[in-house]
Amino acid sequence: MDIFDTDKSRAFLPRYRAFLEEELIPQENALMQLPLEETEAALQPLRQAARQRGLWNPHLDQWHGGPDFSLVEFAQVSEVLGMSPFGHYCCNCQAPDIGNMELLLHNASEALKNKYLKPLTYGEIRSCFAMTEPAHAGSNPVHMSSTAVLEDDHYIINGHKWFTTAADGAAFVIVMAITEPEETNPYARASMLIVPTDTKGFEVVRNIPIMGEAGGGYFSHSEVRFQQCSVPADHLIGTPGTGFTLAQKRLGPGRIHHCMRWIGICERAFQLMCERASSRELSPGVKLGSRQTIQNWIAESRAQINAARYLVLHAAYKIDRMGAKAAKEEISTIKFFVAEVLQSVLDRAIQAHGALGITDDCLLSFWFRHERGARIYDGPDEVHKTVLARGILKGYGLDIKTHE
Amino acid sequence: MDIFDTDKSRAFLPRYRAFLEEELIPQENALMQLPLEETEAALQPLRQAARQRGLWNPHLDQWHGGPDFSLVEFAQVSEVLGMSPFGHYCCNCQAPDIGNMELLLHNASEALKNKYLKPLTYGEIRSCFAMTEPAHAGSNPVHMSSTAVLEDDHYIINGHKWFTTAADGAAFVIVMAITEPEETNPYARASMLIVPTDTKGFEVVRNIPIMGEAGGGYFSHSEVRFQQCSVPADHLIGTPGTGFTLAQKRLGPGRIHHCMRWIGICERAFQLMCERASSRELSPGVKLGSRQTIQNWIAESRAQINAARYLVLHAAYKIDRMGAKAAKEEISTIKFFVAEVLQSVLDRAIQAHGALGITDDCLLSFWFRHERGARIYDGPDEVHKTVLARGILKGYGLDIKTHE
Amino acid sequence: MDIFDTDKSRAFLPRYRAFLEEELIPQENALMQLPLEETEAALQPLRQAARQRGLWNPHLDQWHGGPDFSLVEFAQVSEVLGMSPFGHYCCNCQAPDIGNMELLLHNASEALKNKYLKPLTYGEIRSCFAMTEPAHAGSNPVHMSSTAVLEDDHYIINGHKWFTTAADGAAFVIVMAITEPEETNPYARASMLIVPTDTKGFEVVRNIPIMGEAGGGYFSHSEVRFQQCSVPADHLIGTPGTGFTLAQKRLGPGRIHHCMRWIGICERAFQLMCERASSRELSPGVKLGSRQTIQNWIAESRAQINAARYLVLHAAYKIDRMGAKAAKEEISTIKFFVAEVLQSVLDRAIQAHGALGITDDCLLSFWFRHERGARIYDGPDEVHKTVLARGILKGYGLDIKTHE
Amino acid sequence: MDIFDTDKSRAFLPRYRAFLEEELIPQENALMQLPLEETEAALQPLRQAARQRGLWNPHLDQWHGGPDFSLVEFAQVSEVLGMSPFGHYCCNCQAPDIGNMELLLHNASEALKNKYLKPLTYGEIRSCFAMTEPAHAGSNPVHMSSTAVLEDDHYIINGHKWFTTAADGAAFVIVMAITEPEETNPYARASMLIVPTDTKGFEVVRNIPIMGEAGGGYFSHSEVRFQQCSVPADHLIGTPGTGFTLAQKRLGPGRIHHCMRWIGICERAFQLMCERASSRELSPGVKLGSRQTIQNWIAESRAQINAARYLVLHAAYKIDRMGAKAAKEEISTIKFFVAEVLQSVLDRAIQAHGALGITDDCLLSFWFRHERGARIYDGPDEVHKTVLARGILKGYGLDIKTHE
Repeated sequence: MDIFDTDKSRAFLPRYRAFLEEELIPQENALMQLPLEETEAALQPLRQAARQRGLWNPHLDQWHGGPDFSLVEFAQVSEVLGMSPFGHYCCNCQAPDIGNMELLLHNASEALKNKYLKPLTYGEIRSCFAMTEPAHAGSNPVHMSSTAVLEDDHYIINGHKWFTTAADGAAFVIVMAITEPEETNPYARASMLIVPTDTKGFEVVRNIPIMGEAGGGYFSHSEVRFQQCSVPADHLIGTPGTGFTLAQKRLGPGRIHHCMRWIGICERAFQLMCERASSRELSPGVKLGSRQTIQNWIAESRAQINAARYLVLHAAYKIDRMGAKAAKEEISTIKFFVAEVLQSVLDRAIQAHGALGITDDCLLSFWFRHERGARIYDGPDEVHKTVLARGILKGYGLDIKTHE
Repeated sequence: MDIFDTDKSRAFLPRYRAFLEEELIPQENALMQLPLEETEAALQPLRQAARQRGLWNPHLDQWHGGPDFSLVEFAQVSEVLGMSPFGHYCCNCQAPDIGNMELLLHNASEALKNKYLKPLTYGEIRSCFAMTEPAHAGSNPVHMSSTAVLEDDHYIINGHKWFTTAADGAAFVIVMAITEPEETNPYARASMLIVPTDTKGFEVVRNIPIMGEAGGGYFSHSEVRFQQCSVPADHLIGTPGTGFTLAQKRLGPGRIHHCMRWIGICERAFQLMCERASSRELSPGVKLGSRQTIQNWIAESRAQINAARYLVLHAAYKIDRMGAKAAKEEISTIKFFVAEVLQSVLDRAIQAHGALGITDDCLLSFWFRHERGARIYDGPDEVHKTVLARGILKGYGLDIKTHE
Repeated sequence: MDIFDTDKSRAFLPRYRAFLEEELIPQENALMQLPLEETEAALQPLRQAARQRGLWNPHLDQWHGGPDFSLVEFAQVSEVLGMSPFGHYCCNCQAPDIGNMELLLHNASEALKNKYLKPLTYGEIRSCFAMTEPAHAGSNPVHMSSTAVLEDDHYIINGHKWFTTAADGAAFVIVMAITEPEETNPYARASMLIVPTDTKGFEVVRNIPIMGEAGGGYFSHSEVRFQQCSVPADHLIGTPGTGFTLAQKRLGPGRIHHCMRWIGICERAFQLMCERASSRELSPGVKLGSRQTIQNWIAESRAQINAARYLVLHAAYKIDRMGAKAAKEEISTIKFFVAEVLQSVLDRAIQAHGALGITDDCLLSFWFRHERGARIYDGPDEVHKTVLARGILKGYGLDIKTHE
Repeated sequence: MDIFDTDKSRAFLPRYRAFLEEELIPQENALMQLPLEETEAALQPLRQAARQRGLWNPHLDQWHGGPDFSLVEFAQVSEVLGMSPFGHYCCNCQAPDIGNMELLLHNASEALKNKYLKPLTYGEIRSCFAMTEPAHAGSNPVHMSSTAVLEDDHYIINGHKWFTTAADGAAFVIVMAITEPEETNPYARASMLIVPTDTKGFEVVRNIPIMGEAGGGYFSHSEVRFQQCSVPADHLIGTPGTGFTLAQKRLGPGRIHHCMRWIGICERAFQLMCERASSRELSPGVKLGSRQTIQNWIAESRAQINAARYLVLHAAYKIDRMGAKAAKEEISTIKFFVAEVLQSVLDRAIQAHGALGITDDCLLSFWFRHERGARIYDGPDEVHKTVLARGILKGYGLDIKTHE
């Protein structure tokens, strides 16, 4: 009973839940014991199962083998999949592939779609997205050194990027580089280009060790380098200088995806906390859940998660009806609000587990480490707060320049 | 553009907003300068204006001169009215009268309705509700000393209550008292009775000075005493022993009312903070809003208020469809979540106003004082958290006894 | 047993405590029931008693009738006096008189000392200090409109000030005004001047109603106006253009005074919370203090208060040995740290008292209202954080300009 | 200039600082790149260097090759060493060896001292301490299943423990086991026994993977099992049934050690944050430190760290003068207060580093993971709050039973 429910979500949500309960979660513990770099291979049978259950590509329309969900419907599915670290990958809607698919779908030429989008939708290849540079603050996207220079009918790309998620094993990378250095408008200088990873001069320098793990394959974040990489001019997506416009369009729904995945994590952490509270004995017959402090954590987490979910679903609803641009403030809002809820719910759930909570016997420690980045990636919370506040203050007649 | 909008709310909300902007807010400053005890009289012309605009009794059905709103629709109206300290009183939907009207409407005999409900809906009289006792913790409602003993065809009432809002000048009080002391179920011992305030033995001991003001009339909270008060047996509402059941029914929607009023306060405080940020100069040409700390407050407040509003509207939506009992957890959730948002938004708005914010020249100082109680009345936040958590843990098989 | 204890503090602290317990606190409740404007008169017998007990002027040296305390010793006394709203006034060391006495003692001519300092130390008159202007942000002290122009041997003063504490009934005001408008250094433009309150053109416009009370006499904060006020040139304290230097010297120890008074308030609030927790029944035989949430509040409050006290005493110790200038960062630190502790301890204590906590039957509601200003006056917390951070970052080679 | 400085600390602190700056920190980065299990071997030259500089065994008296520090002096040294993850191990004062040395020094027979303490002080062997059991809540130490049964002149030990820090490679373990199951006082049932790790039946089951790393050698936390382990009866430390008394004595100063190490971590994280703020560019010429949010983090961290340090040093001072028992409340206070400061300072420092902060290129990510346990080990914060509050409420006449 939820105002956002539709016939479609009522039909599909139980099927996604069943997949998790019947197939994924029973194997989750074994999967968690593998080194991250072996996970991708081990997950292939589950991907096959998801496909057979008709749960593949929930983000795509029927032409591309998906269920043609509204963003609200997809968001509800994304929450369910987020309850396991492997949910999205099993259904082929993991970041950054999902964002790349949406980007290509709406902005690439038919030729590029055929060559790069199609095999992605089939799950035959993986892709990555290279934007952040180690030398510049990610919070200021126009501060960028990578360049793509048009020479004859090829772009020659040079640049140094990091946090290129899933580059290890990817078939191609979409890179953000300056193509119009003379543009006075700093937001019209960059373009997005597709670079096959076997292009000469492209190098995965390393999988960056993050919170103790370098990972590998799909579960990794790489440092990559472009040195005189040459790609055909038609590998530029859209028109030259539209890189930021495309990035914005890519990120809008992308934040819905992330936020709902985080809410899925919260729900799972909440479940684990409640199970712990109702089973762990402090002394014979006295359960952890009898402590008022634990009760407070449960109540506060419940309230925060519900609040976060509604914020995101309402933002998705607005995007569905009015487009991502109209929902700019809502999108900034959910980014920092939900990331903070995520961290606080995980923190409480770990504390409720005591020593077990910090071990790798417990799912929570994985998320505690690998989602600390939630407050940083896709623009740190601090930037989103500033963007939101400046937008609001504009309505009160105060215009604050960026980076003032 | 909101998923909760209906034709009716789209028709009515602008009219309530117009009343505030055109009639109430222009007089608000002058009203705030009056001693609280003179406010009631000064507000009569505004009440008249609201009635003429067809904004009277937004909580009631057409039979009782109201617009027959769903709870969601009323909630949206309540937010608008909450933007001024006088909004609800102007439209005759102020607590505790609103709760009393709803209580009588659904539970009183026709005779009682004619005698007590009718003049309330006309705004000819006021009423009050006496439950909390100074000697017992309000957080434990069954811990109560007031009694009503049936002798012949009258109940003889004895008791000592406080925080009986608006008792000063009320025509009658609805009192909660033990009528079935022998009942083993502690929730089946009390009943609600109507006591006209001119009944012998009823006394308003004092208007309790709260945060510096005792107030008067409608704007007051009284200590009252019942000494051998005798009322006809038919002045018991419903059947003997149903006091708690009725209280629960009264409080469910009542918390929606309060929470939406708080959100109205938050919106007004937010507006004041943004106006201040965009006008106040720190030095020539440099506005307060250029400070990142202020921007953080604006962004965090915006996120919190939106989250709070959605939580409440979803709770109201559930009550509309499934009744207050089914929405018990949602009602506990909003109580503590919104009360905390209220306090933190008010606090930031005051801080943004500097010294002005703590003066009575500024609306914020009024709410800072008079809404500190929001975290206490209708059950302190701590009790609601415990109730919510215990309900959740029951679903995990852990049954924790009350007051364990 | 405290590393800060000295022979003198060991001798004096018990005497101050005894005064509170034996004389002041027994009358406190009655005093709290008086309108604020009647309090000053009612306190005269207690001031007499404090003087007879040798507790008068704890901030002064023996030449001025004081005990010649170090700042650390005075700080410890100030905490004890802070436990009652009337403590400091009883011992003649209330702000702003204490700051004015210290200012005059170290900076005024002998003639001014004889005329203005002496009767202050005897408690025969009161004084006030006019700095903040309603038209300018208090956070930026150089942004000031008041002027004092030298004509012949008199200064002609014009200006509009507010939050001039205790102006109502004061014998003289020390006013901050621009005397050197041509100075390029904005910190060298203002001077401090003594203006007897019977000077023509000086007017107390009103006692500003703050959080519901305008108060009166010593317990008030006024809006004042200077219109062509003429004072002899020798009423300028120190030399022309030294206003800010003097203000800084005045404020350094002044913040120690305030902070220790706040810690006294915290200790009292803590006491009230513990008394409530150990006496209030939730149900027969079950005390409030058995709830873990209350226990958390007690533990967290104890930790915070201890931390705050040590921070302040260490700052005082540094001032004693190295002067206020060397302790600039410590002074900024305690201002915002202790103000926040104060507000959170008061908030918890009120919540623990339930409805009683917001009534004027309870001391806590007085402090909740009248100390909300602690985070604002003497520079809002936000300014102190910025000052501290900029000082630290300077040590790392980053120089950030004021109001950047 | 600090009231806690002594001639000895003034002499020694610069020498410890010099060791860090000249020897340890230059190698730190390389050491951090090693797998944890290789670190112990790689650190031996640095241990040698520390010994040659006369910095060995700062926790011991001159008879045992130490400087005979007071606890306050040792605490100050511990903060310095805490600034690197390897500081304490380099000077042979790492937990759990430090606690074991202190325990044996004050409580073991001469024979045990010769056999087990001596080689520890020389750094020839390592030891570990087995108390926490996976089956029971660590927060309730009397809830324990391990047993040691006296048969003839040997104790036969059975039990299952985890979080036995540094068991991997240790020469002996000190185990807590029930020897007096019939005792009515649950705190008099357990004893401490020394078990050489080559004893038959003792097994290191695994190094528990914690936050992504199982580690090895000194840098590990093991699950261990005792199955019919037989040790001579004289390997019981002190007298039978004194396990908890000894544990309390061991933990008192132990918490000072931990807390000061945490403060060292905080200082290093603070340094890293300030360096980042003053060097990282947001856009050409605009440094991160110019943002007010970063300034707030710096100011708030500075205040919190100072407050935490003073709390700990005052607790150490009290232990020095009055013993650990008298300082029981202070010890509980610092445990939860400092652990929370640690986590919040680390969190802010990471956020200030953006993406770099979550990589293993940055020291902060190591501490973020490996100090999440700080709020859990040695008793979770929640237990310490409860202990502190109950102690305080006892002084108000309210006696709350443990685990009520």
